[in-house]
Parts: sequence; structure tokens; C-alpha cells
Amino acid sequence: MKKVYINATFFTMDRENNIFENGMMVVQDKSISYIGQYSEDKLTDVDQVVDLHGKWVLPGLVNAHSHILMTLLRGIGDDMLLKPWLETKIWPLESQFNTEIASVSAQLGILEMVKTGTTTFSDMFNPNGIDSDEVMQTIGKTGIRGAFSHTIFSLGTEEEQKLNIMQAERFARNYKTVADDRLTTMVAPHSPYACTPEALLESLRISKENNLMIHIHVSETDYEVSNIEKCYGFRPIEHLRRLGIFDQPTVIAHGVLLNDEEREILKQHDVRVAHNPISNLKLGSGIADIVSLLNAGIKVGIATDSVASNNNLDMFEEMRTAALLQKGIYKDATKLPAHSTLALATRVGAQVIGMAHTGSLEINKKADFITIYPYDKEHLQPISEAYSHLLYAARGNDVCDVFIDGKTIVKDGTCLTIDEEKVIAEANRLQKTLSR
Amino acid sequence: MKKVYINATFFTMDRENNIFENGMMVVQDKSISYIGQYSEDKLTDVDQVVDLHGKWVLPGLVNAHSHILMTLLRGIGDDMLLKPWLETKIWPLESQFNTEIASVSAQLGILEMVKTGTTTFSDMFNPNGIDSDEVMQTIGKTGIRGAFSHTIFSLGTEEEQKLNIMQAERFARNYKTVADDRLTTMVAPHSPYACTPEALLESLRISKENNLMIHIHVSETDYEVSNIEKCYGFRPIEHLRRLGIFDQPTVIAHGVLLNDEEREILKQHDVRVAHNPISNLKLGSGIADIVSLLNAGIKVGIATDSVASNNNLDMFEEMRTAALLQKGIYKDATKLPAHSTLALATRVGAQVIGMAHTGSLEINKKADFITIYPYDKEHLQPISEAYSHLLYAARGNDVCDVFIDGKTIVKDGTCLTIDEEKVIAEANRLQKTLSR
Repeated sequence: MKKVYINATFFTMDRENNIFENGMMVVQDKSISYIGQYSEDKLTDVDQVVDLHGKWVLPGLVNAHSHILMTLLRGIGDDMLLKPWLETKIWPLESQFNTEIASVSAQLGILEMVKTGTTTFSDMFNPNGIDSDEVMQTIGKTGIRGAFSHTIFSLGTEEEQKLNIMQAERFARNYKTVADDRLTTMVAPHSPYACTPEALLESLRISKENNLMIHIHVSETDYEVSNIEKCYGFRPIEHLRRLGIFDQPTVIAHGVLLNDEEREILKQHDVRVAHNPISNLKLGSGIADIVSLLNAGIKVGIATDSVASNNNLDMFEEMRTAALLQKGIYKDATKLPAHSTLALATRVGAQVIGMAHTGSLEINKKADFITIYPYDKEHLQPISEAYSHLLYAARGNDVCDVFIDGKTIVKDGTCLTIDEEKVIAEANRLQKTLSR
Repeated sequence: MKKVYINATFFTMDRENNIFENGMMVVQDKSISYIGQYSEDKLTDVDQVVDLHGKWVLPGLVNAHSHILMTLLRGIGDDMLLKPWLETKIWPLESQFNTEIASVSAQLGILEMVKTGTTTFSDMFNPNGIDSDEVMQTIGKTGIRGAFSHTIFSLGTEEEQKLNIMQAERFARNYKTVADDRLTTMVAPHSPYACTPEALLESLRISKENNLMIHIHVSETDYEVSNIEKCYGFRPIEHLRRLGIFDQPTVIAHGVLLNDEEREILKQHDVRVAHNPISNLKLGSGIADIVSLLNAGIKVGIATDSVASNNNLDMFEEMRTAALLQKGIYKDATKLPAHSTLALATRVGAQVIGMAHTGSLEINKKADFITIYPYDKEHLQPISEAYSHLLYAARGNDVCDVFIDGKTIVKDGTCLTIDEEKVIAEANRLQKTLSR
């Protein structure tokens, strides 16, 4: 199948930041085979010519860290300190989750993601007591691209911990290449504070044996840093380095509290950072210094974390917040300008989570792209400043159409792969079954 | 005309934060005559019963500081330092404004405001070379409520400065009570750095003689504070206090850089603060300490500033950012919780700009309210956590209907008082006429 998309402005988000006004994109099956100026001769031998009526086209957004199984917990326990929030709200509720709740949570989260322009994400979830096959099949059917990791926790009895690692290993292997190659796995020891060194080493072994990335929460709060230092004599980054974790490709979520020495370690090992600006604010963790990470040559992606600490999955809002915060803390409006920030949420974000085959509109990349029709939207006027509006004025539901692997997932704001009405009804029904 | 609104959840935002599920509101002409539990006997003797089909109803939002004449400048000069931004972008463009550009800019800005739930705003604008009558008439026709102030600048020759003050005085008088009492005026010396002490004293005189509030930018940047200190020997707040400015009811925009002593002065004089969190970040000004302002007993409203430094007018995003920033800078998730923040954007915000007759759903207050239909919106699920979603998950265009003075301004997301298509077309045509 060969489709040609015409009559649109293509924001490629490639390294040169090429923009093709009234450009053209050819999609051959699942990949982009041409992107550039309009060219008559590309129109021959195609199955379909799609007129985009002046829309803006950009690569699908990449959400580098989320927990979609928690979507049913949106709005529960706001404005609380982290410890009572986890202990009295989140964990007691999560412990009641079953396969049905997990599936509906995942669908509700993915529905929101795709409708707000996210086509690829990296998710950490805890499928204990849940039929992972069913949940992963449900996710596969949504058409989204993603990497999923089964959380490894050092909680409970020795037997429970062994079982947890066994399940995580099975999960990592079983779903390494599923759903037409769109879904893959990572290995996710939760954090240096929730995992013993033994569990971290087991995670490392699974990662090495299966050639998978490691996904871990690190340096999120002051408490974590001082606690790890007290327990092990080193701050979290050095603790993980000494265990050899960073010998494997790794993405750390948060990285709010990092010093120069730690940034140097991250750079040396090509450890990437998933930046969760809104979650870090909402939980009172602080503001990560992204400018210093980028100056140190570290790859940074942008992420929402879960709706329990955000409380939406809108990557437009997330990347805008990321850019604004750096300007604010540096008191310098030139920090993290529009093109750099958009790159973090697309091309660079894809690299961060090991999915460099998506994230920009370039030849041979996956045909994962989104469209925005700006002409009837007052907040995107005057339209001549499109690039600025994408970062500073747009909102998630400005997204009109979403394509993943060349397939239409959202059309005119309606998701074609998820029964929206049913998922919303089920989400409300199931949330009421949770006792709290 | 007496209308009864039923079958809705009313978030009154009154002082007790009453919420009436399946409640009832009676609007008699322009004001609320009943709000509370559903009561059969309120249905007699009414002209119309309006079924809201389970919508959420809240008071219209109050934007405490904006510059709507600048709406045509959205997206021009992002990521720039303040001085070159003003000198090479904003001021050269503003100097080319005419009545037509001002009217279209105002309509485009108000269109965005009302469609995202703002029913009242306080705007500072510079109508030099513009027919104020025409612009104010245009604004009046939109149906919005607001206070407008003609900026006083100490720029140009002595004659020009005199003319500027004369025009501002005329403006303040002429439009003090227009458009069915919905529009009023304030007196707006731009800032301590753009106004001489003489211009500030003249502003004070106009304010006193006409019994009007003062609206002024204060303590926005480090540069301003050190510059005023250098020029006058005092920081901006003390400088203004000594001039007597705070003897009149005053709202200062920004207040990013305030110390305890200054907060004490503001409290003593009941000076209110319009907090512009996104603009302060975007221009690199910093993060205002709202928690300390509130602890000092100072009234704080939330505001967008202009789209040239935001770049939208979405008060949902603005209030969310306000709450998140305080949690982040204090590293404390309990700071500025949902109900407090929503109050700043409604009831308290209205007090800040001297419009306490709006901002909450209470008997005898103006019938300025908005509705949200949450049932088909994935990011507002599960719906049981409505209060949380209003602050942490909602976006401006979740707003369905908007009423001001009991009159429908927006219905099902469409503005009834502004020709949306025409304004958007004109905005794009006129922006192209500006040379830059």
C-alpha cells in the first residue's frame, strides 16, 4: 500500500529541523518512503492520494514514562505528601486491581494518549495478579507503539520477591516482540529505594540475557537521595553505577536531583532521562535541571508519569511546562526554545526509549504522525506562527488525525481502535468497585 | 425573566466551598436568586426550566491581568530576552496598530477567553492612535465583563506625556460605566520603571477623582527591582507606597520579587496581586511566591498576561500551573490545593479586580457561570473526582456553555456574540499588514 499525503505543512523534527510548507509525504506500507517538497512525479504508482487541506503534520509525540494501569486512579489523593499518598491511597487501591481493571485502565489511558497526539510511549506497570496476556493483547489492539516493563519490587517475603522477578523475566521475554513489532519490553527495577541490590542485579541479568533496556525511577526526591546515601554510602546514581546497571542501555525516570558528577556518569554511560515536569511539581519533588542535562550531552525525553500525579496525559501541556520551567528557574527566556523542546518530545524522546525508528518524519522511519487543523482554532491564530503555537499555544485535543505504522488510529478526533463510550462507562463502573 | 437550571452539579466556589450535586440555580434577570438543593417549589412562576443533563457548573473564571489588544502578536518573538523582545518585536509592532487591528485583536482574545470559560477580566491596553469608542463598543458587544485601563507611560516628549495622561483620564471617565454596567475602567500607570514619579502622582489623582482602582505592573524582574532601587533609593513597593499610590485600591500585576517587608506593606494597604505564572516563566522573570502572599493575607488573582508571553488565554492551564509551581518550589504537595487555587481563579480573583459581584455562585451575585459536560471526555474520567479534574485535568475547551449576566455567550462550544470565522480571517489578514 502506497499513500501520498499532500497539501500540508510537514514539521519533520529531523536533525536539521526541516519544515516543508505545502510539502509531500509518501508512506509505503508502514514506513515513510519520501518526505519533502511537493513533486509531481511522486504521484505515479500510488494507491491513494490524501489531501490534508492545509493541516500541520508532525511526528507522533513520544511519552517517555507513564503508568497506564493507574489511569483509573485519576484525581485520587491530590495535594498529599508522597508517603501517605502511596501508603493510604495508591497502594491499597492498586492491590485491588484485576485483569478487567487493568485492561480498562490501559485503554482509557491509551485513548487519551492517542487523541492528544502520543503515538509511542514507555510504560512501567505492575501486573501482579493480572493476566498479562490479556492486557497486552488489549493494548496491542489499540494500535499504539510502546515499550512495557513489569515492575520489580523488593517487597514481601523472599518467596514473593522471587516470584516477582520470575514474572518480570517471563513478561520481558514473552512480549519482547508482539503486536506487529509495535510493542516491546524493558526491564524495570522500580527504584534504588524499592529494590535491594540483589533485585537490581537480577534486573541487570534479565536485561543482559534478553538484550533489553532498563527503565528505573531514580533521583526523584530529596528523601530518596539521602536515604540511599545513608543505606549504601553513595547517592543513587553512583550506587547504580557500582552495581553495573548502567552497563546496559538505561532510561531513568525523573532525575530531579543530579549534580555535575552524576551528569558526567550518565553521559559516560549514555543513560537517558525521562523528564516528568508536571508530576515532579505536583508531588513536590522539585524541578529537574534539564538545561544542564542537555549541556552535558545527555538525551532527555518528556513524559507525563501517571494520571495520579499529573492528572492528564497531554504531551502538549507537558512539553510546554518543560520549556517554561527551565526559562523560569534560569530566569532566562532563551533556555529550552521551541524547536529544542519539540525535539525532546519527538525525535530525541524516541531515542531515549530505544525507538529511534520513530519520532521524526524521515525516510525509512515508521509512519507515525499526527495532524492539526489550525484554521478554525482561535488560540492558534495568527496561523503564520505555527511553530511557536505547537509548543506555546496548542493543546492535546487540537490533534485531528493520528497515524501509527501508517494506519489511521484517530480520525477527526475520534479513535477508531478503541470503543470510547464503552471504555468510559466501564472505567466509571469499575472505579466504584474499589474500596477506599 | 426567571430561569431555573436543574440536573447539574453546582460548584459554587463560595466561602464554604458548597457543592450541590443534582442541585438547582435560579437566575432572575441578570442575577442569581437561588442556589442550592433541588426544590420543587422553586419551579413555580418561572419562565424557563433548563435541564443541564448532568453538567458541572461553576462560576465563570476571572482573568486578573491581560492585554487583549496584543492578541495579534501571538507567537512573535518567543524565547527572547525581555529587552530585545520589547524593543525589536513588540513595541515596533504595537506602534503600527490602528482601530481595526485593535478591534480584531480584542475580539480574537475575547473569543478565546469566553470559549475557555473566562467571563470577567481586567485588561491593560494602549489605545494610542486608536478610536477607543469603537474598540470599547466592539468589546461591549461580545457580552464579556471587564475592567479596562489605558496605559500611562512616561515616554516621548513632555507634550506627548501630557497627551497620554489626558487621554488616559478621558478613557477612565468615559468608560467607567458602559455596556450595561459590564465594562468599567481602572487607572494604569504602566510600572514604576516606565513612569516618572510625576506620572504616578497624576495616575493617583485620576484614580482618586474618579474613584477608580489602580492597575500597575510591579516587581516583575530582578532588573526592575535593582533599577528602581538605584534610581529612587527604594525597592518598587516602598517607592510606590511613599508616593501614596497604595492609598487607592490597587492591583499589582506580577509581584514576582517581594520580600516579607513588602508583603507587609501590601497587606496593610489591601493591595492585591495578579499572578501570571506562565508569563513569568516564559519571559524568564521567575516564580512568584504565592504561598507567602496568601499566608500574609493578601488577595491573589490568577492571570494570563498577553498571548505574546503565554501564548494562550486558557485559565484552566493557568490555574493548574499556579498550583503546580507552588508545590514544586516548596517541595510540598500540600501547597495551594485544588479548592484554594480554584478560588483564586474565581471568587478571590473577582475581589482582586474590584468585581466582587461576580466570581461565585451565590444569591445576588451576577449570573456569570460556565458548564462542562464531562461524560464523553476521557481525560475527565472517572467522573467521581470532578473537583480534582477541574484543576488538574481539565482544559479550556472542555467548557461547553458560558453565561454572563444570565445571557448565553457560548453555547455548546460556539460563541454566539462574535463571528468566529470572520474574526479569525481578519486577524490573519491584518497580521500580514504589519511590517517586521
